[in-house]
Amino acid sequence: MIRFNCDYTEGACPEILERLCQTNFEQTPGYGTDDYCQQAAQKILEACQAPQAAVHFLVGGTQANLTVISAVLRPHQCVVCAEPGHINVHETGAIEATGHKVVGLPSPDGKLTAQQVAGYWDGHWADGSHEHIAQPKLVYISDSTELGAVYTKAELEALSQACRQRGMLLFLDGARLGYALAAQENDLTLPDLARLCDIFYIGGTKQGALFGEAVVICNPALQEDFRYLIKQRGGMLAKGRLLGLQFDTLFTDGLYLRLARQADQLAVQLRDALQELGCPMPVVSGSNQQFAVLPDRVLAELGKDYAYSHQGQVDPEHSLVRFCTSWATRQDQVDRLIGDLRRLCR
Amino acid sequence: MIRFNCDYTEGACPEILERLCQTNFEQTPGYGTDDYCQQAAQKILEACQAPQAAVHFLVGGTQANLTVISAVLRPHQCVVCAEPGHINVHETGAIEATGHKVVGLPSPDGKLTAQQVAGYWDGHWADGSHEHIAQPKLVYISDSTELGAVYTKAELEALSQACRQRGMLLFLDGARLGYALAAQENDLTLPDLARLCDIFYIGGTKQGALFGEAVVICNPALQEDFRYLIKQRGGMLAKGRLLGLQFDTLFTDGLYLRLARQADQLAVQLRDALQELGCPMPVVSGSNQQFAVLPDRVLAELGKDYAYSHQGQVDPEHSLVRFCTSWATRQDQVDRLIGDLRRLCR
Amino acid sequence: MIRFNCDYTEGACPEILERLCQTNFEQTPGYGTDDYCQQAAQKILEACQAPQAAVHFLVGGTQANLTVISAVLRPHQCVVCAEPGHINVHETGAIEATGHKVVGLPSPDGKLTAQQVAGYWDGHWADGSHEHIAQPKLVYISDSTELGAVYTKAELEALSQACRQRGMLLFLDGARLGYALAAQENDLTLPDLARLCDIFYIGGTKQGALFGEAVVICNPALQEDFRYLIKQRGGMLAKGRLLGLQFDTLFTDGLYLRLARQADQLAVQLRDALQELGCPMPVVSGSNQQFAVLPDRVLAELGKDYAYSHQGQVDPEHSLVRFCTSWATRQDQVDRLIGDLRRLCR
Amino acid sequence: MIRFNCDYTEGACPEILERLCQTNFEQTPGYGTDDYCQQAAQKILEACQAPQAAVHFLVGGTQANLTVISAVLRPHQCVVCAEPGHINVHETGAIEATGHKVVGLPSPDGKLTAQQVAGYWDGHWADGSHEHIAQPKLVYISDSTELGAVYTKAELEALSQACRQRGMLLFLDGARLGYALAAQENDLTLPDLARLCDIFYIGGTKQGALFGEAVVICNPALQEDFRYLIKQRGGMLAKGRLLGLQFDTLFTDGLYLRLARQADQLAVQLRDALQELGCPMPVVSGSNQQFAVLPDRVLAELGKDYAYSHQGQVDPEHSLVRFCTSWATRQDQVDRLIGDLRRLCR
Repeated sequence: MIRFNCDYTEGACPEILERLCQTNFEQTPGYGTDDYCQQAAQKILEACQAPQAAVHFLVGGTQANLTVISAVLRPHQCVVCAEPGHINVHETGAIEATGHKVVGLPSPDGKLTAQQVAGYWDGHWADGSHEHIAQPKLVYISDSTELGAVYTKAELEALSQACRQRGMLLFLDGARLGYALAAQENDLTLPDLARLCDIFYIGGTKQGALFGEAVVICNPALQEDFRYLIKQRGGMLAKGRLLGLQFDTLFTDGLYLRLARQADQLAVQLRDALQELGCPMPVVSGSNQQFAVLPDRVLAELGKDYAYSHQGQVDPEHSLVRFCTSWATRQDQVDRLIGDLRRLCR
Repeated sequence: MIRFNCDYTEGACPEILERLCQTNFEQTPGYGTDDYCQQAAQKILEACQAPQAAVHFLVGGTQANLTVISAVLRPHQCVVCAEPGHINVHETGAIEATGHKVVGLPSPDGKLTAQQVAGYWDGHWADGSHEHIAQPKLVYISDSTELGAVYTKAELEALSQACRQRGMLLFLDGARLGYALAAQENDLTLPDLARLCDIFYIGGTKQGALFGEAVVICNPALQEDFRYLIKQRGGMLAKGRLLGLQFDTLFTDGLYLRLARQADQLAVQLRDALQELGCPMPVVSGSNQQFAVLPDRVLAELGKDYAYSHQGQVDPEHSLVRFCTSWATRQDQVDRLIGDLRRLCR
Repeated sequence: MIRFNCDYTEGACPEILERLCQTNFEQTPGYGTDDYCQQAAQKILEACQAPQAAVHFLVGGTQANLTVISAVLRPHQCVVCAEPGHINVHETGAIEATGHKVVGLPSPDGKLTAQQVAGYWDGHWADGSHEHIAQPKLVYISDSTELGAVYTKAELEALSQACRQRGMLLFLDGARLGYALAAQENDLTLPDLARLCDIFYIGGTKQGALFGEAVVICNPALQEDFRYLIKQRGGMLAKGRLLGLQFDTLFTDGLYLRLARQADQLAVQLRDALQELGCPMPVVSGSNQQFAVLPDRVLAELGKDYAYSHQGQVDPEHSLVRFCTSWATRQDQVDRLIGDLRRLCR
Repeated sequence: MIRFNCDYTEGACPEILERLCQTNFEQTPGYGTDDYCQQAAQKILEACQAPQAAVHFLVGGTQANLTVISAVLRPHQCVVCAEPGHINVHETGAIEATGHKVVGLPSPDGKLTAQQVAGYWDGHWADGSHEHIAQPKLVYISDSTELGAVYTKAELEALSQACRQRGMLLFLDGARLGYALAAQENDLTLPDLARLCDIFYIGGTKQGALFGEAVVICNPALQEDFRYLIKQRGGMLAKGRLLGLQFDTLFTDGLYLRLARQADQLAVQLRDALQELGCPMPVVSGSNQQFAVLPDRVLAELGKDYAYSHQGQVDPEHSLVRFCTSWATRQDQVDRLIGDLRRLCR
């Protein structure tokens, strides 16, 4: 059984594991106040060319999302996202549990457009009853999106401008940011993100680390007291250095993007094979998640040797499924999958 | 200026005001523990033929909704409603502020169907990732709906059955319950509601009282400690007798439905006139809210003498508006409005 | 049975009731946007000599407390109060339900001192682990306090200064503010409160209104979007004019303080009688609440004709009880109570 | 610099690190549904002799506390603990952020007694205004306590009985449970805990793991839907097997208690030395935390070579400090510390 169902099936990349072993008996202060965290934060700030930003390390994505969103909103304010946004559909109401409405706008590929965001905001303020409606204040996007799509620089610039003109904040969930930045069609860089977002995070869990997300708070107005909020939400890791060590490793010698690029290349091989086989694909992406419609007959066979993620029935005989590659995926695994797909689809 | 924009533009019906004046200097214990509250609760239980139910009096609808919903759900559970449901669009995220996701299902008239509710629940439990999704546990409906529609007994029985078969709870927002029960097309009674709902409330604010909603908790499992929750949410009125006195009056000699019937009859006159004039009406209802599409040119003129509620632009030259009657609306006011509509629409 | 157990046993003062009757059939817009609310707010701002402040009307005290406190704090911030503070002991955890810790500091009379507040704040920031502790940001005081004590101008000035020097906010719960301002020992005025507090409210429920508290937001930084928050917490009364009408009446021709003064004078007669009888009184106050220790034997007899509030057993044969007067208390009622106390205590 | 300030200064015990390395490239399903988690849970259930209990793995203590407490309480219910309880003073209001009041009862050593708990509960229900007060429903204790004290079996049995007789739930925070169970004076076992508590957790973070706490839900009524709640609070680790692997290792061949015993023995050496030197110690404990009062002069010198935790000034010349040992502390480190203490104190 080879697992393509998600991108968190293995442990960590060898460089990280080695580093954890080497430093295991060092004594450091707790809760992220150690030198490794400081060093990792420094490297991230340099990579982002954002010396005024603040970096904090959290264990996971839902934790990062709920901590950030509840930190920046007042109680009556809501967060606007794409309908398939992770916070809207796959976090068990974690954002609402902190008191805030999540407003999902329709999106076939998981992206939000500047026009959508502007339209929602303008509609709110034009409504005479707006005080009876949760106030849009924060825009949440994911790059790559939950459907594998990758934002272009032009799209992100338009979104950022739409937000700033209206006093809204822009938050980018980068659980798969490396896979987005390493995709063929990408033209964004970390400095672009730091310039265009108020806050974003760089995913580690799905990109080579055992766990961890690096939150970058670019907007100085949002930096105050963030460590209190991490602690309150249960996200302050006692042995915080584990996070520092991992991100320090990922941001040394370009490892983070190198791992992502390799996963994306394998994903593109798979994508091309699926297209060649005529499988409908809702999004054409160069990132590590590939969604395709396949006959249930094929999927039943495929499921004996491979794990994939079932996304839903599209007609009585076909389903939409997701295949993920990751930093840990090997060429031979993809070759074998493609070979079997070709065999089964004919 | 005559106000048809909503059904809470005047004070209280004379019977209530007189009662408040008569009893003003009586001394009673506070917080709803007085005899008037007890007496009013008793009359409501009798009207509902539900001796095992519990009755609590709250000041307003949003307060009732948030207190009830947060009282009956565990943190990971959500409430399912129609997209135009009041809790979804007009309470500034009040439900989310208590920690719970509100899931809106599409609905042109504001009603939910048994099939929709069953489908949502079944889909949740069929999803392998259901632990990552807020769990549907409570169904919220309004009668009449936010668009003036009235549930039939068959519809409510089907909904109730769909919920009970699945372990979901059914909560009915009756802010305009009198206007629903008094509508021509209605075939429901208070005993039906008490039998089919787990919890519902009987609106006073819009139906003759200065303020007040009577929450009826039919399901004994939901009755425990409800007064703690009222207090915690800020809904325990110090001079609770004001609520008891008002509902006691409304439930004496059929006053509640008598007031509602009179308002509905005037609304039907208006509805018939609008239909005669060829104004599109999204819902044909016998309750006190009438929604119609009118030319903006007509509305501009009308607005000089009447208040109506603007619901949205439907095309560059037409808008959807709402007219409400209430217990306080007079025949001559409706006559004048109909006369002016006829004059302006020709 | 004459009730001295609390100050909300009757309805409203006749001036208010008459006003409600006179205006009953007027049509006004809803949710506090009517002229009466505006007019009442204007009179309050004038009484406070605070033209830049904002006034909002809420139905009750717990609602006012939870709405204000959750409006001004970020999630990790707590509110500091005296241990017997209403929010700490008599609101069923309403503040915590909005997400905030309430820190109670010891206080025999319900007052906080500048020194206590400064000490708590300084201790927080001196602690190396302060990010692991809820951050003190808001100070909550009551005037008169839950034990009947009345703040002096010097005390409030010191508290205000201690807060401002540290970036803390000062919030005064004035559920019984009239009774405090009308007390013999009081030297504070409404303009003093507006100058020294960031936010406070003027109680109506216990001071002549059917219900209602007027929140005065003096600090402009706290004014933004407050109506959203009122709506979200369920506190936006549909027929908001009921609040405007009541406060407009109370702030016409000095009615508010006149009613309070009369109640305080009767309370002082009672206090003097209790002192003369040798009953220990934990606080000597000129406001409308009088706490005294009485023999249980006397209380048992007294309870046949009078309601009082039992505060706790102090030894096997004595209890602490509270007597309240109000705007509705009559001289003959107090005379009778004093007569019976004298008879029973001898 | 040798760190005795806390028990989370190193990484993991070698057995765990080796296991993580060995399994690094295995592919497993996510979110704790893998075989390692199942296997670890099984071993814990066997160690607890509690086949009906449920085991869940969380990353840290605050996360475990807030997830458990908010899972088992209704909104109006509070948790009762000792004043120095971790949830009361060192979690930045994490419990309140989920909506619940934390009531701290006085305790010099961090323990609660059955009598205290019973007294608080009885007092609540005897109060005529109890609906205005948060309802005590859950008792939170820590073993060992935040001051190093260890519960006896008699104490825990009394507490458990006091809770069960009143319908309260008992929750034990075992962040340092191993150090408690391995202490000389301990007479409790894991099966005792499983029998006497409704829910407890077995700390890993401070006891040999990189991170992780194993929550054991003994009371079947509290088991439903717990995974939803973990997800909602941000505690569901994507690579959940990391937790399973660590606890599987700790519960193989008695490693967990072996590591704890070794730490406790070193702590007792330090304790004996401190007592011999005449340093006042507020609690005499055989667990891994030792609190002592030392001259500031000594502490200043000591601080050059050792990290300790400063707990507070007790007089102008003395402070209370904490020394911790852990699974990673070596005999030579303790020898050196004791030697230096002897030198400096003379």
